[in-house]
Amino acid sequence: MRTAPDVQPSANGAPRPDAEDALTALVGLVQEDLDACNRLIIARMQSPVQLIPQLAAHLIAAGGKRLRPLLTLAAARLCGYRGERHVGLAACVEFIHTATLLHDDVVDESDLRRGQASANAIFGNKASVLVGDFLFARAFQLMVADGSLEVLDILCSASATIAEGEVLQLVIQNDTASTEAQYLEVIEGKTAALFAAATRVGAVVAERPRSEAEALESYGRNLGIAFQLVDDALDYSAEQERLGKTVGDDFREGKITLPVILAFARGDEAERAFWRRVLEEKRQEEADLAHALSLMHRHNTITDTIDRARHYGDLALAGLAPFAECPEKKALAGIVEFCVARAR
Amino acid sequence: MRTAPDVQPSANGAPRPDAEDALTALVGLVQEDLDACNRLIIARMQSPVQLIPQLAAHLIAAGGKRLRPLLTLAAARLCGYRGERHVGLAACVEFIHTATLLHDDVVDESDLRRGQASANAIFGNKASVLVGDFLFARAFQLMVADGSLEVLDILCSASATIAEGEVLQLVIQNDTASTEAQYLEVIEGKTAALFAAATRVGAVVAERPRSEAEALESYGRNLGIAFQLVDDALDYSAEQERLGKTVGDDFREGKITLPVILAFARGDEAERAFWRRVLEEKRQEEADLAHALSLMHRHNTITDTIDRARHYGDLALAGLAPFAECPEKKALAGIVEFCVARAR
Repeated sequence: MRTAPDVQPSANGAPRPDAEDALTALVGLVQEDLDACNRLIIARMQSPVQLIPQLAAHLIAAGGKRLRPLLTLAAARLCGYRGERHVGLAACVEFIHTATLLHDDVVDESDLRRGQASANAIFGNKASVLVGDFLFARAFQLMVADGSLEVLDILCSASATIAEGEVLQLVIQNDTASTEAQYLEVIEGKTAALFAAATRVGAVVAERPRSEAEALESYGRNLGIAFQLVDDALDYSAEQERLGKTVGDDFREGKITLPVILAFARGDEAERAFWRRVLEEKRQEEADLAHALSLMHRHNTITDTIDRARHYGDLALAGLAPFAECPEKKALAGIVEFCVARAR
Repeated sequence: MRTAPDVQPSANGAPRPDAEDALTALVGLVQEDLDACNRLIIARMQSPVQLIPQLAAHLIAAGGKRLRPLLTLAAARLCGYRGERHVGLAACVEFIHTATLLHDDVVDESDLRRGQASANAIFGNKASVLVGDFLFARAFQLMVADGSLEVLDILCSASATIAEGEVLQLVIQNDTASTEAQYLEVIEGKTAALFAAATRVGAVVAERPRSEAEALESYGRNLGIAFQLVDDALDYSAEQERLGKTVGDDFREGKITLPVILAFARGDEAERAFWRRVLEEKRQEEADLAHALSLMHRHNTITDTIDRARHYGDLALAGLAPFAECPEKKALAGIVEFCVARAR
């Protein structure tokens, strides 16, 4: 249950054609803005201290489809914005995301990220923490340059909420008695808060009425929840291997995600003893992952997790309702399908 | 050469009476503001996620003399400010400082901080990184509430510079060929940048002319450099034990501080081979610290480090020159002596 990684490049696997099409359509709509955003990202991650751009490039330049900045760019265009401020704010969003990934890799002791060795495995935990701090500060500098206290408020609050979600995840880690409500609180913080802020600032730069900003925020928040639910389901799915990742990473780390919470809640006493042994006591044997998967299938917890993702995806789509039909609206709706369809 | 810790509570040792008096005088001048700042700090470190205030309290509530926020409070009063904004900004400064300490303890694998077990030793690296992120975000939220883009700019830039200084420290760590210039760049970033920002914002809230803001910034920057120089000298001084800390922590971590840089530069080939073995190759034996101390004494590198601190202390005092004599000016001048006198 790490912070939602960015979507995989298709080279690493073969996302469903229709899902991939949705992302391509969105990129196509804002291609110039995205190029400008990428140039800004490269320019603003520079520092006389060479290790900073080296390490940042490992995450920022390589891989990743820029899903969150794409949301900012498309939301601004959906709101009829014709200026350039959304480019800088999209870069902010990506910097915040990258900083949380760097810190998340440290805290998770992960050794893989986007199918490559994680930054902390190559550069060490020390460098990952400090370069993450640098990117956070850079994000805030970009916001200050933008000059809107409203935007600063949205993204600062999101940053605090992300940290709260990550700490809560740590608190309930290895606790099989965690509830679905606690799990939702975690993913609303660590993942959905930045999606929500990313889309809301699109409406804010366009100076749209509060109701539209709130609708776009709701789109982003529910999309983020759906995205993380699918991510946590994928960790136990054969799909994961097609995407170039390993099945069961969360299991081995003792992470309590929804597929586990539901299996624990629906299991008998023997099953609960199993979950406690492997996730609380972290005493895992070779056959345990296969047994865990069989329990999840018996109780339909992976499909139920994906069903919940679809529910939040529907709520995300409802957030687009106030907006007139246009290519941006269609593309943002497509992204919901893109996120949910990864799990099929 | 960790980020400058806050000054020791006198209970842990016995700072020189005259030095301690300077701090007492400063606190006495801004006691009401400091109390308000402390209340705000406690209020704003709360979160529904209980681990956050628990961990933050470990650093914030316990120990520490609030040197940096005191500088903000006194600088604002020196500039004739009569409002309340400096209280919130002083709290920001302390939050940023605490966040960097939390991240610094992680990266240093330190197990002691202010004579107590460090937060990461008790709560784990994961929690320290994430609560540090939360406190950074809280600091920026407090600045947004203050509403001054100029203040935001000063403190965001300082945060980026701190991270750059910390990364540079990492890069030159264990490299005995590091230069004094590189060392100065490190401490200007990791320590002096926040001192400089803390004092500058005092002038900014008082809406004083740029020249006064720059003078106070120069006071803070040079005070910060002096403070860190003394800190790095103290690590090799018997004074350190009186302050309740261990002699040679930096040595054992292979940190390259000025007393070492000067000893390496002034040593013969046999001495350089010694420094390379113990600091680059990290092969240390029991008698090595004593030998290192004897080499430093032979080449006067500890006293020379303190002499340099005194030089920067004089530059700090020069930053106070534009201001008319008043109790605040006297107290801020006393703080320079307080910082330098720790090393006697």
